[in-house]
Amino acid sequence: MHVDIGAALASAADPGVERATLDDLDERVAAAHDRIEQGMDDDEFGYASLNLPEVTDAAVIRDAVAPVADAESVITVGIGGSALGAKTITEALADEPGSHVVLDNVDPEHVRRTLDGLSLADTAINVVSRSGTTAETLANFLVVREAYENRGVDWTERIVVTTGESGPLRALADQHDLPTLPVPEGVPGRFSALSAVGLVPPAILDIDIEGLLAGGRKAADDLAPSLYDSPAYAYGAMTYALEEAGATVNAVMPYAERLESFGEWFAQLWAESLGKDGRGQTPARALGATDQHSQLQLYRAGHRDKVVTFVRPRERADVAIPNPDHEDLSYLAGTDLGGLIDAEYEATVASLPAAERPALEVEIDRLDAESVGELLYAMEAACVLVGELADVETFTQPAVEWGKNATRALIRGEATDETAVIDERERLRIGETESL
Amino acid sequence: MHVDIGAALASAADPGVERATLDDLDERVAAAHDRIEQGMDDDEFGYASLNLPEVTDAAVIRDAVAPVADAESVITVGIGGSALGAKTITEALADEPGSHVVLDNVDPEHVRRTLDGLSLADTAINVVSRSGTTAETLANFLVVREAYENRGVDWTERIVVTTGESGPLRALADQHDLPTLPVPEGVPGRFSALSAVGLVPPAILDIDIEGLLAGGRKAADDLAPSLYDSPAYAYGAMTYALEEAGATVNAVMPYAERLESFGEWFAQLWAESLGKDGRGQTPARALGATDQHSQLQLYRAGHRDKVVTFVRPRERADVAIPNPDHEDLSYLAGTDLGGLIDAEYEATVASLPAAERPALEVEIDRLDAESVGELLYAMEAACVLVGELADVETFTQPAVEWGKNATRALIRGEATDETAVIDERERLRIGETESL
Repeated sequence: MHVDIGAALASAADPGVERATLDDLDERVAAAHDRIEQGMDDDEFGYASLNLPEVTDAAVIRDAVAPVADAESVITVGIGGSALGAKTITEALADEPGSHVVLDNVDPEHVRRTLDGLSLADTAINVVSRSGTTAETLANFLVVREAYENRGVDWTERIVVTTGESGPLRALADQHDLPTLPVPEGVPGRFSALSAVGLVPPAILDIDIEGLLAGGRKAADDLAPSLYDSPAYAYGAMTYALEEAGATVNAVMPYAERLESFGEWFAQLWAESLGKDGRGQTPARALGATDQHSQLQLYRAGHRDKVVTFVRPRERADVAIPNPDHEDLSYLAGTDLGGLIDAEYEATVASLPAAERPALEVEIDRLDAESVGELLYAMEAACVLVGELADVETFTQPAVEWGKNATRALIRGEATDETAVIDERERLRIGETESL
Repeated sequence: MHVDIGAALASAADPGVERATLDDLDERVAAAHDRIEQGMDDDEFGYASLNLPEVTDAAVIRDAVAPVADAESVITVGIGGSALGAKTITEALADEPGSHVVLDNVDPEHVRRTLDGLSLADTAINVVSRSGTTAETLANFLVVREAYENRGVDWTERIVVTTGESGPLRALADQHDLPTLPVPEGVPGRFSALSAVGLVPPAILDIDIEGLLAGGRKAADDLAPSLYDSPAYAYGAMTYALEEAGATVNAVMPYAERLESFGEWFAQLWAESLGKDGRGQTPARALGATDQHSQLQLYRAGHRDKVVTFVRPRERADVAIPNPDHEDLSYLAGTDLGGLIDAEYEATVASLPAAERPALEVEIDRLDAESVGELLYAMEAACVLVGELADVETFTQPAVEWGKNATRALIRGEATDETAVIDERERLRIGETESL
């Protein structure tokens, strides 16, 4: 992985980072690196995530999925960190578009349409929940199981369960003797892509999960006590310094359709890890070149509260553009779509410092297993570094508990502190008709 | 459409809007409404967009698509405002998921895979570019046309062209006598959903485009000189006042998978229209309930620079949750996925003011043509109102020109002011290997 931070220096952009600030920050990066290494050595909660490329055993995963290795597609029943890693990896690397379907929402019509569109006999089920009690996941799992039963397909022959050591999913797996993989200890969901949580669907779809882990190990080896020697830390330190300088939004803009879900994965990583104590960049998802026609106006001319992170593979398979038969289009003659998207990338990156707005560039060699594994690991390490520099609890997400409790109380019809807040909250409705 | 602004008042949230501020603002809303009505009456550039539900002739569109009405799917070749309206409408309303494919990027592998996955004989082509020279659109069109030729399908029998009065696409349409629809005058792409630009794919897929236009007319009728009488203006005035109070990010979170593209459409509308003169909210896309497990931590505990806009249909088709056979899940017994997602909606909306963070609610009756047309129109009117209040040029996007010029120069290999900036811009690369 390669990172270019030049377009986010104070000499290029406002907000931007002074070289002197960065040099000072580098001492804190060294200290944070020590802290991170210590946490990894001790297998400490959260930090243990960065050991996954070393400790995840691809052979164990391949064994567990062997009974469903003939499946043409796989449906993941999971949400958040239990879905986004696998979704990101399969979108980037699967041969067949659409071969990995993710049920990570409880929209009834969507669930029904998704199941209607699948040949369940040819579809493996990947159900993932550490606790085995995640409301959305278990509700969807019950619906999926019933659909298999209704169509006469033995779901117990089609399923792989990834869960913790106890809970309803573990009980179910024991009862039916299902292939089961553990959710790794000490690893929050959003850091679990390079474990069974993220690797079961790729393994079923015959993606090179060994290569993904090798890429993660390469990124781990590239961590170093200076941001100038470590692309992951360079990225993390710059986003931290930019946030301090006012860039409270981080717009992530991959120039590759197959990295669109990477933006979603990154958004969870950044938001849940760093969005606390009144700080943390808001991740905004974009896609190049498409969103040049949607978001670029704002990025170049809006509030000075954003940095744009550009991501691309350096090599691509290409498609020639046939000769146009109109002189207004003659400039496209002899070029190809890859040449066009790369020209747009270069132009758009440069257009930000040309408007004195900061940009960061992240490049991987190509869209293969090793580079994708490297990218995911490096961004996790960058995130952990930002958490150290910002002194937040990177590995928890306390602010989501309120809503979970409230949801449960609403469904149960119980009166709790949360439902009292819901009942009493201020409303000012506009546009209501008589019928309400 | 119904809007609830209670959870974004200063009594509920920080940033929040004082009732007195809102009352003062209402006088400016009345003046802006006059200005907007005048612009509509005069068919002035931009304001003319709000006349579309009145002036768009559904019968003309149905006639133009008649030759391809037998197509099972449609591929749109367009980008930005030439694609997002149609994408949003078909995602919300098409019977068959995947029946509308959008080529709005020049990623070579994605284009190749998309074409490989389609039966072109059964696929209509919807090509859209006002100028007929949009680089991405014309490059993709040349590739698509060649694919049809290579597979022996007569593309001239499968195509509908939507373009301006001159340019390469108009010339091509004239040459081959193709069904052609005009891009409406005075309507920027991002405001063109309720014209041929947005309605051709729905018409091909037999969606109720008349209902979409009727919904737009309903929303137009609901505009009124007070924010307290007009849901669209209530939404616009609140987002304006919240931005003034520090909410420079607007996270849009629909609770319906079929409204995911609506978030993309909204993001373009907001960013290109309002992101100028150092202001304009950054639209952040999210999806409920999924992103409760990804973004909610940040929304409740991060910087106080965000408002979350919740969007949902009040009625949904539903799917029962089968009885769980584990006591930890007994609370799900007897409920359904719709009950669960609506409980999550209620809980999550309330969780923001419970953390003193602002939320806005936008509800439509259900996911049908009329409600979707109403929603799109109301958000356009809201956006125009914000532009009036903020005194920006809502209907232009000057900041994207630099990158377009630079891209063209790079492809042509010309040296221009832009390429000089690209060549000389500051770089600080980390992680480069010897091979570079």
